Amino acid sequence: MTRHDGLDVAGLQRRLAEFAQARGWEPYHTSKNLAVALSVEAAELVEIFQWLTPEESARVMEDREKAHRVRDEVADVLAYLLQFCEVLGVDALSALSDKIDRNETRFPVK
Amino acid sequence: MTRHDGLDVAGLQRRLAEFAQARGWEPYHTSKNLAVALSVEAAELVEIFQWLTPEESARVMEDREKAHRVRDEVADVLAYLLQFCEVLGVDALSALSDKIDRNETRFPVK
Amino acid sequence: MTRHDGLDVAGLQRRLAEFAQARGWEPYHTSKNLAVALSVEAAELVEIFQWLTPEESARVMEDREKAHRVRDEVADVLAYLLQFCEVLGVDALSALSDKIDRNETRFPVK
Amino acid sequence: MTRHDGLDVAGLQRRLAEFAQARGWEPYHTSKNLAVALSVEAAELVEIFQWLTPEESARVMEDREKAHRVRDEVADVLAYLLQFCEVLGVDALSALSDKIDRNETRFPVK
Repeated sequence: MTRHDGLDVAGLQRRLAEFAQARGWEPYHTSKNLAVALSVEAAELVEIFQWLTPEESARVMEDREKAHRVRDEVADVLAYLLQFCEVLGVDALSALSDKIDRNETRFPVK
Repeated sequence: MTRHDGLDVAGLQRRLAEFAQARGWEPYHTSKNLAVALSVEAAELVEIFQWLTPEESARVMEDREKAHRVRDEVADVLAYLLQFCEVLGVDALSALSDKIDRNETRFPVK
Repeated sequence: MTRHDGLDVAGLQRRLAEFAQARGWEPYHTSKNLAVALSVEAAELVEIFQWLTPEESARVMEDREKAHRVRDEVADVLAYLLQFCEVLGVDALSALSDKIDRNETRFPVK
Repeated sequence: MTRHDGLDVAGLQRRLAEFAQARGWEPYHTSKNLAVALSVEAAELVEIFQWLTPEESARVMEDREKAHRVRDEVADVLAYLLQFCEVLGVDALSALSDKIDRNETRFPVK
């Protein structure tokens, strides 16, 4: 493991699964509901930026309260993405690696 | 590294950054645009499930074409999440780990 | 006019335009920002339903507090849709009428 | 009626209801699914703008193909909003009128 215990995707995915199981939340965690929850959290991330100019959006982490919200929404998006992947048996990292491979062919550097 | 080269979050984040840089896409990759793109990809994932019953949504990976779409959209969501985090200097894994810690206090197991 | 003053789409669209103008909000109301704001409000509507079963979602208006939230989010979605249309000169009702015409050809009744 | 037959909200809502009924789509049209479909269509509208600068987004209707997509997505958003309202018995126009009234108190003109 490259980082301290738990801070890799597999470890976090396991913690999330145990967390949901301990609270009896599994019946709610259908793949459909988790995809929908992911999209709701993505919108909450977007909400922070919705009225900002491109320039203001680059400086969002200088505002302590906004920086906290950004980290919080990033965490929520990643949490639902990993729970979705857990439920359907999708390996998110290898899916992304394969996609980058395909995109290197699809968008060749000129 | 726990897995073969590149298949950890830091490695994928680096590949994505190099990919965008090589194609001159950086001016488009404001934090605002990347958050918006993330939400668009999350909606494309949701679209696969929008008319399915909860039961049908559990079996979505049995359909070869839908399974491919699911993996593809998961990859897109993760790609924009990591690019967003790269641009703002957010560590997605530690943000999630901190959030799980907070949620363990907020939602105690009864 | 079929209903009392202001309660048609054109009247509401005019009230929204005057509201934004009186508050100096027009610079924020780019078509891009309004489309994004529309999607954020749509997600807030979805949030009310995200963990509900299909059956529970049919009874959502029986809960007074949820019914209020539903009406409130419907208003926000429609507000941003009409402001978006105002800014770009799109007639939402005729766009929808044309689309239903096309769909009648595309999805013939068997 | 201010416009030719069918081009008011009530008329369009009725056409949409008849369209869905004639095709046996009603079982899919739970309030949850319709809210989700609305959010998916809102994201498709956003997609047109996602990499545009604020200035480019103001000129989107000058491009014939993009103008067609904008009108088409506006129609889809409005269609799902009206179908959602039909299923739950929400009057979208009066919800918006009430909301503007509340906002006039909440955001007084200085």
